[in-house]
Order: sequence, then C-alpha cells, then structure tokens
Amino acid sequence: MIITLTTDFGYKDPFVGIMKGVIASINPRAHVIDLSHGVAPQDIMGGALVLRHAVSYFPQGSIHVVVVDPGVGSARRPLLIETSQGYFIGPDNGVLSLALTDDRIMRIIDLSHGAFHRQPISATFHGRDMFAPAAAHLSLTGDAAQLGVTIGDFARITWPQVEPWSAGWQGQIVYIDNFGNLFTNVTQQHVAQLQDTRPTIALGDIVIHGLADNYTAGAPGDYIALINSWGLLEIAVCQENAQRLSGARIGDKIYIHAQ
Amino acid sequence: MIITLTTDFGYKDPFVGIMKGVIASINPRAHVIDLSHGVAPQDIMGGALVLRHAVSYFPQGSIHVVVVDPGVGSARRPLLIETSQGYFIGPDNGVLSLALTDDRIMRIIDLSHGAFHRQPISATFHGRDMFAPAAAHLSLTGDAAQLGVTIGDFARITWPQVEPWSAGWQGQIVYIDNFGNLFTNVTQQHVAQLQDTRPTIALGDIVIHGLADNYTAGAPGDYIALINSWGLLEIAVCQENAQRLSGARIGDKIYIHAQ
Amino acid sequence: MIITLTTDFGYKDPFVGIMKGVIASINPRAHVIDLSHGVAPQDIMGGALVLRHAVSYFPQGSIHVVVVDPGVGSARRPLLIETSQGYFIGPDNGVLSLALTDDRIMRIIDLSHGAFHRQPISATFHGRDMFAPAAAHLSLTGDAAQLGVTIGDFARITWPQVEPWSAGWQGQIVYIDNFGNLFTNVTQQHVAQLQDTRPTIALGDIVIHGLADNYTAGAPGDYIALINSWGLLEIAVCQENAQRLSGARIGDKIYIHAQ
Repeated sequence: MIITLTTDFGYKDPFVGIMKGVIASINPRAHVIDLSHGVAPQDIMGGALVLRHAVSYFPQGSIHVVVVDPGVGSARRPLLIETSQGYFIGPDNGVLSLALTDDRIMRIIDLSHGAFHRQPISATFHGRDMFAPAAAHLSLTGDAAQLGVTIGDFARITWPQVEPWSAGWQGQIVYIDNFGNLFTNVTQQHVAQLQDTRPTIALGDIVIHGLADNYTAGAPGDYIALINSWGLLEIAVCQENAQRLSGARIGDKIYIHAQ
Repeated sequence: MIITLTTDFGYKDPFVGIMKGVIASINPRAHVIDLSHGVAPQDIMGGALVLRHAVSYFPQGSIHVVVVDPGVGSARRPLLIETSQGYFIGPDNGVLSLALTDDRIMRIIDLSHGAFHRQPISATFHGRDMFAPAAAHLSLTGDAAQLGVTIGDFARITWPQVEPWSAGWQGQIVYIDNFGNLFTNVTQQHVAQLQDTRPTIALGDIVIHGLADNYTAGAPGDYIALINSWGLLEIAVCQENAQRLSGARIGDKIYIHAQ
Repeated sequence: MIITLTTDFGYKDPFVGIMKGVIASINPRAHVIDLSHGVAPQDIMGGALVLRHAVSYFPQGSIHVVVVDPGVGSARRPLLIETSQGYFIGPDNGVLSLALTDDRIMRIIDLSHGAFHRQPISATFHGRDMFAPAAAHLSLTGDAAQLGVTIGDFARITWPQVEPWSAGWQGQIVYIDNFGNLFTNVTQQHVAQLQDTRPTIALGDIVIHGLADNYTAGAPGDYIALINSWGLLEIAVCQENAQRLSGARIGDKIYIHAQ
C-alpha cells in the first residue's frame, strides 16, 4: 500500500524521516513515496496544488498525507477523507481540498480522538503523532472508520477563478516551479475556447504571440507560452528562468486573447 | 531491517544515492530511510542532535548510519556501537554519542580492519567504502561482532548544560529548524521545576510572558515560547521565521525564570 | 529490480514523486533509488558526471533513468541503451554518454513510438510520460526490445581533455560538490605518470605542494589537493568551502607538474 507525503518541512531537519520511522514501526511493508517537502512554509495553497496535480499518477486507494499545518495544536481538526480515488490525511485547513474536486467523497473522519495517536501528543508535530500513525494503521487495515468519528464537512480553499476579459481571459500565476516556469490558472480548455491558433499572451510588459510546442521553440532567452504537464498555460523562457528574468510572483495577472 | 542515513552531504551530489547502491548490492531487502542529509557541513553537534531526537521513533534493532565526518581518512576510528536500542554506525567523533545517553551499551566495534570494506578504500568517502557496507552486512546477518574488533570506549560530545540563573535557568539555542524556530537546551523538566504557570522567557531584547499551547497563540508576527516536539523550550514567531526576525544563532543565551 | 533517478527537477516540486507514482502504478515492486535531483537546471554535463561516477555502485542490470532534458518535446529522441552493465534511459542529448565509455553497448532503442507511453504525452514532462513508464515496464519484463525501435547510434558529449603542459598536465574543474570541493578532470593515472611524490598543483594564485592523504592534512583554512572518491584530483580547503574561498568555477584551469 502506497503512502505519499507532502509537507513544508524542507530538507534540513529529520521531521520527514521521523514520520517514516513512525510509519515503519506500525507497518513495515508500507511503501512511502515523497511528493514534495519543499512547499513554502505555511503555504496551504502551494501544498494543495502539489497534491492536486500529483494524485492521479498514483494507484487508486493510495493514502496521501499532507502536513502544511500552521494551525497545528489548535482547534483545527485533523482529517481523513476517503474518496473514490483514495485516502487523504491532513489538517482541516483546505490543503486537501483542491485534490478532491472531481472525486466522490465517501467518508470524512475527524481524527481528533482516535485510539491510534502516538502519546504524548505534541503541540507542534501532529505529522508524527496523528497523521503518520493514522496513515500507517489505515495501510494495514484498510478500515478508515475505526480511526475516528465520521463528520459532515471539511474546509475548502478555492482555486483563483479565470475571468472573461475583452476577447479572452484574465488569469493569474498560481505556481512557479524549480525552473522558474510560471504556471497560470488558465487551462487548456480556456485556451481552446478562444478558437485562435495564435492567441496573444501578456504578463506586464511581456507580450507573447502564439503557443509554443516545447521549450526549444525560441532562441535562448525568448519568452514563450505553452500548455504544460498540468494542463495549464505556462509562461517560460527558453533555456532560462522566467521567474528570475521577469520578477513575476504568484498572484500576478496574465491575459490571453484572440489576436 | 531498517537502515537510517544521516549526513551532511546535502542534496546536490549523488553521494547518498551511491551509499544506497552499495547497500542494495549487498542486501537488496534492506529498508533505507533518510533522516536528514541537510546537516550543515562538518556540524557534528547538528548531526548528533538530529540523531538523538529521531531514533526513538524507529523500531528497536534499527541500524542508524551517520556520516558527518570532517576527519574522514585520518586516524579517527570508524565505529559500530550496539546498544539496547539498536545499532549506530559512524565516525568516532562524537556524532553518535548524544543518541546513546539513555541506552545500555552492549558492544563497541572498531570497523578499521573489517573484512567487509569496499576496496579500494578512498580517503574521502568512508560512507561508501566502510559505513554503508558495514550497515548492509549487519542488516543481513545481525552479527555485529564479525564486522571488526571490539574496543572499550568511544568519543562523546556534551550537550551544553543548562545553568541555574536567578530564579530560573540560563540555557542556549542548540538547533534552528527549517521554519526558523529556535530550539533551546531547556527541557520541559526544567520548565516544570519553575512551578510557575506563566514564566518569563528572554532572548536578547525579546521578552515573552508565559508558554503558548501552539503556534496560533499569538497574532502573526508575535514571539511565543512553547514546549516543542523534542520536549524542548522553543522560541517561535507566529506565522513567521523567528531566526530571520531575531537574527538569533546557535549558542545565543536564553533565560527563563519565574515571574 | 533497481531503478535509479537523476534529474534537474530540484526538491521543491512534486515532479520526482509523480514519476515514482507512475512507476509504482506499473510495477509496485520496483525499487527506486534517487541518485540526485540537484543537477543544475539544463546542465547536461553535470547530470552526465553524476551518472558516470555512480553506476558502478549499483547491481548489474539496474535501470538508470536520467531526466536533464532541455529539448523535451522537440525532435531529440527518447532513448533506452542496454549495455553490459545495465540499462540507461533518458533523452538523446549526451547526458547518458559519459557513463557508457567503458561498457559494451548491446542495444540502442528509440522510445519515440513505443506502445508504453502514458497518454496524452505532454510537451514538457517526458520523465512522467515516457521515461518512467519505459523503466517500469522494463523492470517488469526485462525485455528492452519491445519498448521501441532499435537504432544505431546515440549522442555523446566529451569529457574535457587533460592536456600535457610543461612538466605535467593542464586540466580543469569539472564538478563542485556540496562541500565546495573542486573536482578536476585530472585522474589518479595522470598524477601517477608524473612520478613525483610531491607534485605542485596550481589554480590561479593558489599553489599547493604535494598531495594530502585526507582533509585533516592541513590547518583549518589551508588549501590541499588529494585524490578523491571518484579517482580525480581534487582541490579542497580544510574544514572550509574551497569554492567559496577561491571563487573558482567549473571550467577554470588547473595545473599539476613535477616539482
């Protein structure tokens, strides 16, 4: 049984390793896969996007644990959500929600008073004391219901909406990857609706004409736009780092319209 | 059988992957878990603290390999220490010692002349040539004695002592995590001895009154103090990075006293 | 069956985790080991060196996947190369070639039109859509031929040559590790040919006399030279970071000659 881990713990500390020790102590056969531990500290939207675009590449029934948890130890609930696709474990702050938009929700469990916590429960590391034990027990038994109390809802965050704008769309940068590529919330469906084989894309002063097929479509240093591996409109610079060259940030507006 | 790895190798180079290749070549069934490879270069105390606070979350009998080894290739001995808790492999420079303070030491092995080295032995990478092979063979056979010569002692480093001070304690910052939280050497036992439900904590000009239950106890930007997941007094800033805001460093003094 | 992964994806994004999900979906028993994901973006030579110096530490028949792929989605071919040592999967841009110099090449497969791609194939992430599926299917079946069309050649990059110079050699810095150690292309064979137990090594203004046995050979801050774990002449600084102190970069010339 696969358990994925997504956190904002970074790579300096042993916190992820400790979670893996807790899991291996309960289920030595659990197959743990790191999705990312490089989510920016407390960046709930960043963690939610990472999860959203990764879960479909894992087998159905995988257990996805996300610990981006600025409210750890407070009244926010620790959750396990069972869907048609798999299991999602993490704090009730919305970080799980973007991955669940297309799923049928089968069950929502509040892990607060479960019998499977590690004692004593710290105020600062529920990944170790609640989420890892819940994932490990679930991977052993497949029985979500025994891990807590069934409840009726969970917190959701919303993906920023793309807005109609002139003869096209106004979107925004929602994610920037390690290469400095600028991922927008404009999907390939939005682009298709323009019915223009050579739309214009604008980000501040930068204007791009037409969509590229790949990163070699321009000379080194040229701005290009393409549909990326998440099905999103992306602005990139050939052989360079678009974020560094443009200074763009998450939330910056972009425009795409028919010529 | 679990083998954990803790190093100062960082994440840029293939050195950790090479150690895993050596282990898998000897014992394909070994279950290798990374504790951290983000220990600061040559930071023996940092590696020792990471190990100390992680081993109790792994099954008894796990093999813990630590390669923070500025003296690699010199006369410092390569060690395997067997305790009531598990096996500890690394250089004899103290990096293993903080994890062993509560254990019964069963056996100390000098790996210098073992039959299980990878040949030729490099001068710069005993993780590959001595420690990984030793861990892998041990995970196969469970026989520590065959890996070298039994000796009588090993190097220890000492955790900085907390000192009595006025109506409380003087401690210091011993670890700073990825979030910028400042871990001190003051334990929850020290705090309990103050018998004050609202002690005062001071770090330079920063004065904090009382202990918080969790990171949401203040407004964003407020300094708080709490007992963290390692059972240590920690100074943090709500939703922010305390290290960056305070400029504090490892070794900086902190004070806690009854009101 | 071991599958190693080497990429320039970094540690911020879920791209490596996604590849592992794809692999686990096809072959849950594949044993995936990360070599490095810290290759500098688009640094084909860096990726090639990492691979070259790591593969000999893995069991024969291991599958090595490298995704340093600035031409992803363009006409560059996706390759699988079978050698006497193992299997090598990645783009046909030379990144695989340095690891293959001593191997007998058994078969070269163009993966372009394989039946085992993940559909739809993105323009930007062949690691997910072609390379990971090919590696996973190969780990299941051991049958390379079925994965594509046999072709006759592949792109090679060349390791910079060491040149005779005065009474010795002119080489250059080819790799800099996490500790700031400066790896040169001068091998221990070159050094042996000098037949001098105390050669002189020069990098810009820095002059080093003789080879050290290990990193403790000098006082903290002293420049030393030694033969490192890759069998290469390395310039280091005792207890410090030679790259930071010297400002040296990849490509900088170094000289070694008899006294």
